[in-house]
Amino acid sequence: MDNFVFHSPTKVIFGKGEEANVGGLIKGYGFGKVLLHYGGGSIQKSGLYDVVTKSLREAGVAFVELSGVEPNPKLPLVREGIALCRNEGVDIILAVGGGSVIDSAKAIGMGLPMDADVWDIYSGAFRPTATVPVGVILTLAAAGSELSNSSVITNPAQMLKRGHGNDVCRPLFAILNPALTFTVSKFQTACGVVDILMHTIERFFGTPARTELTDALAESLMRTVITAGKKAFENPEDYEARGDIMWASSLSHNGLTGNGRTGDWASHQLEHEISGMFDRVAHGAGLSVVFPAWARYVCKHDYARFARFAVNVWGVIHNGSNEETAHAGIDAAEAFFRSLDMPTRLTDLGIGAESIEGMAKQAYGARDSFGFFTPIRPEDTVAIYKLAL
Amino acid sequence: MDNFVFHSPTKVIFGKGEEANVGGLIKGYGFGKVLLHYGGGSIQKSGLYDVVTKSLREAGVAFVELSGVEPNPKLPLVREGIALCRNEGVDIILAVGGGSVIDSAKAIGMGLPMDADVWDIYSGAFRPTATVPVGVILTLAAAGSELSNSSVITNPAQMLKRGHGNDVCRPLFAILNPALTFTVSKFQTACGVVDILMHTIERFFGTPARTELTDALAESLMRTVITAGKKAFENPEDYEARGDIMWASSLSHNGLTGNGRTGDWASHQLEHEISGMFDRVAHGAGLSVVFPAWARYVCKHDYARFARFAVNVWGVIHNGSNEETAHAGIDAAEAFFRSLDMPTRLTDLGIGAESIEGMAKQAYGARDSFGFFTPIRPEDTVAIYKLAL
Repeated sequence: MDNFVFHSPTKVIFGKGEEANVGGLIKGYGFGKVLLHYGGGSIQKSGLYDVVTKSLREAGVAFVELSGVEPNPKLPLVREGIALCRNEGVDIILAVGGGSVIDSAKAIGMGLPMDADVWDIYSGAFRPTATVPVGVILTLAAAGSELSNSSVITNPAQMLKRGHGNDVCRPLFAILNPALTFTVSKFQTACGVVDILMHTIERFFGTPARTELTDALAESLMRTVITAGKKAFENPEDYEARGDIMWASSLSHNGLTGNGRTGDWASHQLEHEISGMFDRVAHGAGLSVVFPAWARYVCKHDYARFARFAVNVWGVIHNGSNEETAHAGIDAAEAFFRSLDMPTRLTDLGIGAESIEGMAKQAYGARDSFGFFTPIRPEDTVAIYKLAL
Repeated sequence: MDNFVFHSPTKVIFGKGEEANVGGLIKGYGFGKVLLHYGGGSIQKSGLYDVVTKSLREAGVAFVELSGVEPNPKLPLVREGIALCRNEGVDIILAVGGGSVIDSAKAIGMGLPMDADVWDIYSGAFRPTATVPVGVILTLAAAGSELSNSSVITNPAQMLKRGHGNDVCRPLFAILNPALTFTVSKFQTACGVVDILMHTIERFFGTPARTELTDALAESLMRTVITAGKKAFENPEDYEARGDIMWASSLSHNGLTGNGRTGDWASHQLEHEISGMFDRVAHGAGLSVVFPAWARYVCKHDYARFARFAVNVWGVIHNGSNEETAHAGIDAAEAFFRSLDMPTRLTDLGIGAESIEGMAKQAYGARDSFGFFTPIRPEDTVAIYKLAL
């Protein structure tokens, strides 16, 4: 077990109807003015907007609004939010939405105490040590940003998408009502399930440290998400299944399932280049394509680890051969993704062999490799994308 | 899944040698003066005292000391700590030890901002909303107080032992170095393993809510503790096993393994009366006696739940009968406790039938029952103690 730091201070308020108490909650903290931050009209259509604004008004909490957060949240709106919060004296940002809205809120929060421009955080020029707090009402179980230490922002002028990891940006509180995800489409539900699984899979494969408790927690979380994912896909209003998925989205990305080991994260890097070049590709859909290919390509470096994954996560019976069992586990993961109508081939995404060299080139800046399970060099990236065709 | 609140804000710094960084850590928070709080001479003998004081001095952090915390930490020392901290302008308490030292530190922390006497917290007359922060260097994996929201203090003048639960007293940070527990005796190691298991078992049995993810995490934690417990019992310097146990001690009592369900806690109440009347009885030893008896007495109310416990925690093969499988699981738990040389009968503790009525009477104040799996009334308590003879 490697030494680790684990700090997940977010207060989780989980369950039916809890979003109606947000005004009292914020009042109780003693904040003066809220920025209500959200995406498009979906929270108005669903009635959530009315519930939240009524709760704020009844608690006597003043608020201003900034909507318009898009998937892959954009820098200009973050800057607009910072200017608005300064003008209005906002001291807490309430993100109502999924990962994009939360990431945008985190950027505004960290940008507010800065003299310099907020992009300096994402370019790596500045590491913040303070933030205006962010609260969350979650409407999509996927990214795990509600408890995570990360935020990803896109700078359209420079055509750059950059992430920042920092415990300072973990939200102050997160209200998780599984019923708010009943209306999430089958496709987005499946993308979320893949994303949640991948946040733990990336941590499960990594440096070879022995982390028995962490592994056991990770395996139990993955098994639960697989079972609940099928149920929610079939019956979108299954509260218990939606609840397991929502709570797993948070626990899969707050660090719990990776303590004591450095996670791999190569699949995320490989996916990043796909959705970077093809904006239409959803993150979860890109991950369901690259993970089986990455796994088949690298499993030879530690068949025993992949065999454990097969047995403990996918219920594969070990046939005496770690190699064969490892491959059976990867097959099972791919079959599960397909059972949720997820793509598992680049061609399913409309991407052909002609794009591979370009995507592979994008993945390397000054680095010559990425990934902690085994280093992935440019020729490996090309080979993995070819396996995914 | 019942609605729940989960808030575990303690920063965990886990691993070899981390205690040597405590001075810089405290300095980084900006605190001015530390109360170094500990028990007897064991931290001096082990060299830990020197490591900690050297780290504080090198970081330029001022400190005063208060030692002498006993098992079942006492109110007079808490009051002495409060007076000392006020005189010295202490703004953080560093608990170096196990559950007793941490509970004492929590009491001092919560007592400091109060006008009234600190016992008002434990008598129920006052509920604190603020504390002077507590940091922890853990030397015993058992009570889980390093991440929990509870503190138990004994008032010797009134012959009362009372607990208080309040998120405000969760520690600010906890340094967990498994190597610091290498010198813990086999008996104390076994008591710790039982205590850790019981913190999750109490949560696993409770109100009948469906909590699939929580159950899966709880089962994986229990399986890991059982395996690691055997290893550490046989080989006290097995770092990985000590590490699994130490991290489990924290996660087993911070709330993670019970989210979405109200835990039972009847076994703790039944044990409380044993060690209340017989001071020589260690908490873990009392629990290993009462749990099998409680389980055999109540399992008829939900054989299916106990059968799940048998299969998923103890590896029992389900034979088609929930009743028989349930009992096989309880037998397996009892056999495991015995394999660690734990007592499993009141007579093992030197307690005979003549004490039962007295202990049973103590368990009920104004209440007429306790426990959330099924209510335990006075006649049930007598019957359970008799089963434990």
